[in-house]
Amino acid sequence: MTNQRIYFDNNATTLLDPRVFKAMLKDLSGPPANPSSVHWFGQQAKNLLMNARQSAASFFQAKSDEIVFTSSGTESLNMMLRGLKPGGHLITSAIEHSAMYKTIRSLEAGGTTVSYLPVGLWGAPLPQTIDCAIKPDTRAIALSLSNGETGVKIDAMAIAEIAKKQGVPLLLDCVSYAGKERLPVHPGISAMCISGHKFHGPKGVGILFRRSSLKLNPLITGGNQEYQMRAGTENLAGILGLTEALKILSETQDEIAAHLLGLRLHFEKGLMSLSDIRIHGEGPRISNTSNVAFLGVDGETLFMQLDLAGVAVSQGSACSSGALEPSRVLMQMGIEKKVAQSSLRFSFGRTNTQEEVERALEIIAHIVKKLR
Amino acid sequence: MTNQRIYFDNNATTLLDPRVFKAMLKDLSGPPANPSSVHWFGQQAKNLLMNARQSAASFFQAKSDEIVFTSSGTESLNMMLRGLKPGGHLITSAIEHSAMYKTIRSLEAGGTTVSYLPVGLWGAPLPQTIDCAIKPDTRAIALSLSNGETGVKIDAMAIAEIAKKQGVPLLLDCVSYAGKERLPVHPGISAMCISGHKFHGPKGVGILFRRSSLKLNPLITGGNQEYQMRAGTENLAGILGLTEALKILSETQDEIAAHLLGLRLHFEKGLMSLSDIRIHGEGPRISNTSNVAFLGVDGETLFMQLDLAGVAVSQGSACSSGALEPSRVLMQMGIEKKVAQSSLRFSFGRTNTQEEVERALEIIAHIVKKLR
Repeated sequence: MTNQRIYFDNNATTLLDPRVFKAMLKDLSGPPANPSSVHWFGQQAKNLLMNARQSAASFFQAKSDEIVFTSSGTESLNMMLRGLKPGGHLITSAIEHSAMYKTIRSLEAGGTTVSYLPVGLWGAPLPQTIDCAIKPDTRAIALSLSNGETGVKIDAMAIAEIAKKQGVPLLLDCVSYAGKERLPVHPGISAMCISGHKFHGPKGVGILFRRSSLKLNPLITGGNQEYQMRAGTENLAGILGLTEALKILSETQDEIAAHLLGLRLHFEKGLMSLSDIRIHGEGPRISNTSNVAFLGVDGETLFMQLDLAGVAVSQGSACSSGALEPSRVLMQMGIEKKVAQSSLRFSFGRTNTQEEVERALEIIAHIVKKLR
Repeated sequence: MTNQRIYFDNNATTLLDPRVFKAMLKDLSGPPANPSSVHWFGQQAKNLLMNARQSAASFFQAKSDEIVFTSSGTESLNMMLRGLKPGGHLITSAIEHSAMYKTIRSLEAGGTTVSYLPVGLWGAPLPQTIDCAIKPDTRAIALSLSNGETGVKIDAMAIAEIAKKQGVPLLLDCVSYAGKERLPVHPGISAMCISGHKFHGPKGVGILFRRSSLKLNPLITGGNQEYQMRAGTENLAGILGLTEALKILSETQDEIAAHLLGLRLHFEKGLMSLSDIRIHGEGPRISNTSNVAFLGVDGETLFMQLDLAGVAVSQGSACSSGALEPSRVLMQMGIEKKVAQSSLRFSFGRTNTQEEVERALEIIAHIVKKLR
């Protein structure tokens, strides 16, 4: 159907998988279910929650009590950072998502010293830069596994090895990474945050996986839920949906990654027929993300023309949208303001097809030529 | 159907209303929907969110930017309390829910001074006690509108009048109150917290209503969602469900309250045929809650026997369940340990019927006689 809208903004959110929806019905269509209740109804709910937690734990090759179900990737990140013992020194990069960046800024205002490592046109901090930045009072290294705007990946294994050797916890924002490629496993990784709706799960639920060796204070206090790490009645439907989405990933992650990479490479090759195109990020990129400068074209105008033509993309992170400034991430990479302002992010999802890529390429070529 | 289980634990959680489920489908069965996205898909989501927020605002007779959608009642309470300027003096009662109690304890450990007002057998702090407790550095009065375990209500209008006169913000935990009776409206009330699943909405979503005059720091930082008061992609399905549940309440609150009160009075009258019964809380109680001591009977045994017979009740707050100690609330009221340990909470919901009450009364009478 050539009239159907094309959604290439899967880093903002994704279509809910029908299997995920079905898993959520166990709670949404079930009897009243508070997993903390001791009676029959509560026990049914508790069993569902326990199984979901075990399933999440096995996804992370972790123990059940190392999984905290939260309400979002952002909450997971806040918990991971604000839960640290206050003070000391933190290492991060200059291009983190606002959930990490603003939270670290707020810790900095409270007295923590912070190294914001440069990333340059490469698009990710290099392992040796991190190694050199470690100080005796470094409490943690906090980085995203892949940048949500450019898709550039850090060298997770090398950085995890450094973290392990130096005895500094490595805390990873995996929100834009999970669902696209297999998460790395390394004893040097102390925590990982993910968000359900970025991989065809529900909005309103996330996970903080943190090793039991990493001591964190809770962000939200009250009842004894989540091993006393996160108070409040559990979002059971959301948790069942999220863990079903993880199960689907476990079974199909490699195929999904190949499919996404196929779409991205096809797209990027197709773009080459247009002149004055630049794809941001020299470092290895995740399977699904292209951040493209259409030189000489105003990105906002192109964005709007594409939207009118039925192609949904993004000018940056959805969480930063509405900002009149060019992308902080691109500016921090040292990209000229004008180039940054001519850039759009295309992020593919597993529901996208090659046919959509081809159709979008035609529309893009048409509009870009018109605007130039 | 006499074999059906009876659920009298509606203060722990409630059955999802089918109309609420239907409202959630607008997101769960819809296209990818991140309200922060600027494109067509995002605008559809943003419109749903804006309408939901307006509907919630009108429920509280508030402005849209005074509504913060959160992930739970507990998160709302944490935000309301931890968002205050640190230090100073807080007034609360000795019988608050753990979400309030533990959070205030944690503020106390950080240097805030706290007055925990006594409640006695009445079951709620009296307005004049509150008036006398106000000091020059009192930052807020934080109380639950009704106690979740006993149902005893505070005199909200009198306390709000004192708060207004003295210029001290009154912050209300309305989690166990909303859905049972109409929320009070008074300019002296500066904030109110509610939780969707306590009134037939979904789990995983709550509201903090706070007047724009009350300055709060956010608990969760990152993107600009919720007027920069609460970062993270919005739980749109949950929010649509919660606001539908509020709409149902607006239209039927008085009938619901009358129905619940009818069930409770019928139940309490029926209990009178048993000897040595005591209903806790001398103060006016909310329509749906009876906390009953069966003197000479071990509460835990009675609880389990009732559960086996298909009647689900509670020994206290679900958030405190698993604790071996008798209810902190009952102990703080000055009730003897043995009496507290013989007590069970019955909390009715709008899905309960008179027939269920009668059937439960028979079962209770049978078991209590056997245990005595």
